[in-house]
Parts: sequence; structure tokens; C-alpha cells
Amino acid sequence: MNAKALVVLSGGQDSTTCLYWAIDRFGRENVSSVTFDYGQRHRIELTSAAEIAGFAGVPNVILPIDTFAALGGDALTGEDIAVDSTLDEETGLPNTFVPGRNLIFLTFAAAFAYQRNIAHLVTGVAQTDYSGYPDCREETMSALQTAIQLGMESEVQIHTPLMHLSKKETVELAQALGALPAMAMTHTCYNGERPPCGHCAACELRAKGFAEAGVVDPLLI
Amino acid sequence: MNAKALVVLSGGQDSTTCLYWAIDRFGRENVSSVTFDYGQRHRIELTSAAEIAGFAGVPNVILPIDTFAALGGDALTGEDIAVDSTLDEETGLPNTFVPGRNLIFLTFAAAFAYQRNIAHLVTGVAQTDYSGYPDCREETMSALQTAIQLGMESEVQIHTPLMHLSKKETVELAQALGALPAMAMTHTCYNGERPPCGHCAACELRAKGFAEAGVVDPLLI
Repeated sequence: MNAKALVVLSGGQDSTTCLYWAIDRFGRENVSSVTFDYGQRHRIELTSAAEIAGFAGVPNVILPIDTFAALGGDALTGEDIAVDSTLDEETGLPNTFVPGRNLIFLTFAAAFAYQRNIAHLVTGVAQTDYSGYPDCREETMSALQTAIQLGMESEVQIHTPLMHLSKKETVELAQALGALPAMAMTHTCYNGERPPCGHCAACELRAKGFAEAGVVDPLLI
Repeated sequence: MNAKALVVLSGGQDSTTCLYWAIDRFGRENVSSVTFDYGQRHRIELTSAAEIAGFAGVPNVILPIDTFAALGGDALTGEDIAVDSTLDEETGLPNTFVPGRNLIFLTFAAAFAYQRNIAHLVTGVAQTDYSGYPDCREETMSALQTAIQLGMESEVQIHTPLMHLSKKETVELAQALGALPAMAMTHTCYNGERPPCGHCAACELRAKGFAEAGVVDPLLI
């Protein structure tokens, strides 16, 4: 097994922390990042990801996925659907749920890694603040790793350094890894605002994490 | 669990047989089909799939996937790469291997099914004539089903009716299900020729199956 790693970089706080985790663990020269352009409403995420990767000194590739938009029906890609944090009565999931989004992201990341002989994938999914996203859980990631290893005859490992951390602990990890300056470039707000709206579920969760860690969010300075 | 089923229809012999298997098992009114436009070199596959679905009397949706083309580097989507049946010296796989193709197809099919409350997915993968495609094996499908069920909080089942059949047995199954007339519309040839080239690995495997079953291939009539 080589020590090359690929980070799935969304341009948010968690994946940025993972990027610095990967640099710390595998060495900057062994790390690259991939960002998916899947028709997300907030195009600023793509700019943020490229900016963060550039700042961290690692390559970033943007891969298109036009399928989610064709599937339609979710609030993160659908133009006509308002974002709210309430749960869908039928599914019990937030309407920001894109079925299988992380399964798809990691499988494409694995295909990309396969072609480049990269043995490690890193993703910022976490189940501690699990808010209705079943594709972020450890058992899902574990099953997916098995499916990918079998389906590609590969020994690729999926690393989820934030899986069991609270937002507070993620902020502390980011601080320990020297990732805070890059946090000023991250995008979290579900409403796509910059400066962030401060009142959507994503903004509130982020603010809570920084407050509990006793760290000022560089994005707000 | 409802009895609605979604068939991943590529326009080839195996998926067409699966379409008729699903109609037989779930009833025509409960079956629909999805075809992926993933940049395959042989656009005739898309026409074949739509033609077969129409002939069989089931809906067909074509979903785009632009990611494989962006990933590049394989003979089924790459314009510049010749198809050959020899194995890649490094990976031991044929150069028609698209890493994780069936993982992606089934995950997107599951997302589509999720949105429409469809509980059954049907795919024509088979490991009997396993020729270097690890994403066609039963253990891969089983692991993927687990990953999808966990990742989407769904009870979707992946059905692989051809998994343990030889090509001969697949032809016999197609005959028993009344699928032979639709076989005239299928596309198999790796070289994209119609009538088929007859000498590529896919044509040879198909011809062998029909010959052993003692059935004349409707495509050749």
C-alpha cells in the first residue's frame, strides 16, 4: 500500500479539517483533493474548495456529476425547493437529503483514486451530529468500503477522521492541525450567503461548535 | 414492501432478459427501466434500450452520468483508446473495465427508486462468465446492497437473476420468458457494429451462448 491520499473536499468546515488531517498524516506531497460539481445551488462551494486547496498547497480536481440534477427533487440541487430544517413527514429525513449522495461521491472518488494508484480516501462525514443523513454513518461507510474494495478489486481505505467528533471537537482538531486560517475560506451556510446568514441549521451548528471550543470563527472576522 | 421494480437496462442481451424476468415476476404494470447515458462510445445502446422498453411495454428513463467521461482512461468511454480483450499488465483487468461502473449504476438506480417508492432493483450482472469485472460478482452486489440499504435507510433489494447462469442458460431463460423477439433489438458488439462484428469478445460470447442453447440469435436473422 502506498501513502497517497485523496480528500473529498466540499469547501466546508469539515472537509477542510480533513484536508489538514490528511496533510498531517500522509504529507502534503502525497495529498490531493477532489470536489464534485453536482449542480449544488451554492456555486460558491466550488470556489471555496479550489481556494482552500490552493491555500493548503494541494492539487484540486473538480469532477462533474450531472445525475443528481436529472434525478431532481431535493433542496440542495433543486432550484424550486426551499431549504428548511424540518423533517419530511413521509421519510423522516430533512429535505436537504440527496439519496445516496456520499455513496456516489466516495465511489467516484475511489474510481479516480484507482486510476492514480491512490490507496486512501478521506471524507468529513460524521455521525455525532447526525441530523438525518444515513449516508454519513460509520456502518454505511464500512459497508461502502467493502463494496468498493470488492467491486474494484482494490484495497482502498476510507478514512473518516471526524466520525465520532462533536462540532466542538472538530474545531479543536482544526486548531491543532493549523487549519484555522483556511476556515476563513470555507462555506457552510445552507442559504448560500457570505457572510453567512447565521440562522440556518448549518450556520447554527457551526457557531455552536466554535463557541463551545472557545475559538472565534475566522469566517466571521 | 411494495412490488414495484426498476430494471437497469443497458440495451444488451442480459439486461433485456432481466426486463422480461421482472415483468414475469412483478407484472408489467409494476416494472420500469432506467438506462444510463454515461458517454458510452456506442450510442446505439441508448436507442436499443428505449426500443426494447417500448416493445416490452414498460417506461424507460435515460439518466445522464457525465462523470466517467471526465474520469477518462477506459476503452468504453474514451475516444482515443482501442478496445482489446487482453488484460492490462498492471491491473490484470481488461481495458474495457470502468472502475466501479456497476456500483455507480446501481446506486443511482437506488436513488431513483427511493424517490419513487420502488423496492426492487434488477440488474443483469453475472459472475459465471466473469471475465475480469469484479463489480459483477455476487459478493460485490451483496455488499453494495448493504451499503445502499444503510446509506438510504431503505429496504431496497438488488435482484441478479443471471448471476449464476451461463450464457447458454441465459438464452434458455430468455426463450422461456418470451424475450427472444426483443433480442433482435439488443446490442452486444464491443465494436459498436450492427450487424455485429462477430469477432470481438462480446460477440463471440453471445454466439457461443446461442449456439449451445440451440437457438438462432434473432439479431442475426
